[in-house]
Amino acid sequence: MLDVLAGIGRNVRTGGYRRDAWSSSELELREWFGQEADARGLDRYEDRNGNLWAWWGDPDRTPGVVTGSHLDSVREGGAFDGPLGVVSAFQAVDVLRGRGFEPGRPIGIVSFSDEEGARFGVPCIGSRLLTGILPPERARGLTGDDGGTLAEVLRAQGRDSVGLGRDEKALARMKVFVELHIEQGRNLTEPVGVAAAIWPHGRWRFDFRGTADHAGTTALADRDDPMLSYAHAVLAARRVAEQFGVVATFGKVRVSPNNANAIPSLVSAWLDARGPDEGAVRRLVAELSEGQEVVCESWTPEVTFPTALRDRLAATIGGPAPILPTGAGHDAGILASAGIPSAMLFVRNPTGVSHSPAEFAEPDDCAAGVTALADVLADLCGDAR
Amino acid sequence: MLDVLAGIGRNVRTGGYRRDAWSSSELELREWFGQEADARGLDRYEDRNGNLWAWWGDPDRTPGVVTGSHLDSVREGGAFDGPLGVVSAFQAVDVLRGRGFEPGRPIGIVSFSDEEGARFGVPCIGSRLLTGILPPERARGLTGDDGGTLAEVLRAQGRDSVGLGRDEKALARMKVFVELHIEQGRNLTEPVGVAAAIWPHGRWRFDFRGTADHAGTTALADRDDPMLSYAHAVLAARRVAEQFGVVATFGKVRVSPNNANAIPSLVSAWLDARGPDEGAVRRLVAELSEGQEVVCESWTPEVTFPTALRDRLAATIGGPAPILPTGAGHDAGILASAGIPSAMLFVRNPTGVSHSPAEFAEPDDCAAGVTALADVLADLCGDAR
Repeated sequence: MLDVLAGIGRNVRTGGYRRDAWSSSELELREWFGQEADARGLDRYEDRNGNLWAWWGDPDRTPGVVTGSHLDSVREGGAFDGPLGVVSAFQAVDVLRGRGFEPGRPIGIVSFSDEEGARFGVPCIGSRLLTGILPPERARGLTGDDGGTLAEVLRAQGRDSVGLGRDEKALARMKVFVELHIEQGRNLTEPVGVAAAIWPHGRWRFDFRGTADHAGTTALADRDDPMLSYAHAVLAARRVAEQFGVVATFGKVRVSPNNANAIPSLVSAWLDARGPDEGAVRRLVAELSEGQEVVCESWTPEVTFPTALRDRLAATIGGPAPILPTGAGHDAGILASAGIPSAMLFVRNPTGVSHSPAEFAEPDDCAAGVTALADVLADLCGDAR
Repeated sequence: MLDVLAGIGRNVRTGGYRRDAWSSSELELREWFGQEADARGLDRYEDRNGNLWAWWGDPDRTPGVVTGSHLDSVREGGAFDGPLGVVSAFQAVDVLRGRGFEPGRPIGIVSFSDEEGARFGVPCIGSRLLTGILPPERARGLTGDDGGTLAEVLRAQGRDSVGLGRDEKALARMKVFVELHIEQGRNLTEPVGVAAAIWPHGRWRFDFRGTADHAGTTALADRDDPMLSYAHAVLAARRVAEQFGVVATFGKVRVSPNNANAIPSLVSAWLDARGPDEGAVRRLVAELSEGQEVVCESWTPEVTFPTALRDRLAATIGGPAPILPTGAGHDAGILASAGIPSAMLFVRNPTGVSHSPAEFAEPDDCAAGVTALADVLADLCGDAR
């Protein structure tokens, strides 16, 4: 079923996807979500934070079991990161119905808005707003790469940003959340695994300021060139990350004015830092920030998924299913940190490559993921017959 | 007169200009050129390489004395770099007419197209095409930052790129060329000076390739991160430039895909290198290029302006006028290297800052520049009375 989405937002030259939140390609994916929900007779709607929901049963009578993921992508990302979890959710409903299963609780499918943060810099905007972790006034003012704020982008798409913020009603409908996702490291050797924890992680914007001047006529001694400061920071990030046992990446840079023949006035660069130990991540950021102009754009403390729920998933899948931590952030981590019992299923990624057109999972492993997800939903709902 | 252009393409927040070749702001400046020519009864036209000409007299009868500069700007550049030379050319004609001067030869005013190369990467496209230094087939395929080729951009503006290339007729009309320009270093302490030489200079694009992957889940040891290679190159460029007595700048960078949470697959960066000694510039580029994927986008050997012409200008201005070299590239350098007798007048820049909104020249110095240019044109033409 992932095949039907293959053409949406795809760069035919590279094979990578561009599905920024609220872009035309992402809006097309939102339409697809509605069609899939309608085709199955599910009650569907978009909540006031832009997240899409589809319910089998009435979650206002009994809190439900929710599954899903996100439809947006990093720029030049792969086909699986996000959509696999949403597609598998619809397919798991089909499997359960094919079995004649009658859920003892409602089953919900969700697609969270703007998980990657490709456009506005902050990841998991939909789930952070839903849970109240991201203040709505900050969200409204987030500025996208094209210069418009989130509030302006929502308005242009006929959405009202006044409604952004913690949504008690939506939260009350969720008894438990299970997200299925492609694994993004190389450590899962079985078709399906279960998440143990998400590393603490965050993004920091460094603004290196200098003095714009002519690249030909300004003597080296007279220069105040921020590109040199940036280069030192890139190398320091790698060195300190090795020292502290964490990972640190400068993957995004914006140079002003970005003329070949001018010394820049400003180099802005985004540091992504993560690791198994929160103290080590914080020490790395503190060391790199010394004497610099730095803004923390997001921070997610370590998430340990509830052990009993995690073990229940592993037992349901059988095998026995591997239980493993991840360095990748997910909406399930945001919900878990907000107190919603949450768990994750990972589908094997033979190369571990992700956030790349080369991201891949075998069709058989994806099918095993759907079966595992159906089994887990059945177990968590109970059969009403 | 520069004041009337002050609002065109200006970023009100920074005070910097954006006047890319063939952008709406640059097209507005082209219209202004036509109006000024018409107001003075000059014969004006656009040649097949996009350069604008206005003639006082008939250059097909007698080759003329040409002055002018360019109207495009680096991004976030200042008000003077380029337009000062075009505005001063019109004003010098006014001065000569006010004196009742009747030129013994035609006087031409030119605005060369795309001197800065802000959009297509190669500087002095108009004068390089005119002289045949830039092959037209290469020019047509140059790709702008917005993805369109020069041929496509010209077509969109109703121009036919079939006519690009060396223009014998236009060259035959020029007996001599004098460009007035704001000085871009700190070495001119008199209101007006004369150029001795232009340093050899060039631009090279470095493509640092790596492997796109997830910033959180990819262990440091498993990474192939091109940002590290770039950072090493930035620091090496500074170190080697100091060693060889040249200047080297990485002022422009393009990161793919430029996600905060992904290791890039490609970092492209432009090296600008110049210096008084061509061998030293070449040795720097060779040392930095070792083992790298590098394309030379432009190279201009040292230009020494004809000594007799230069001295004649200095004598005409009097003072005595300082004679100084520059690290900045100019259309006059392109014409000189193509065998057109060429010279330059510089107007004092008290801070030396250029390619920046802070670029500045005193009104009195600009007025002195106009007078000097009028005197030089009168001397080179002779009075027909």
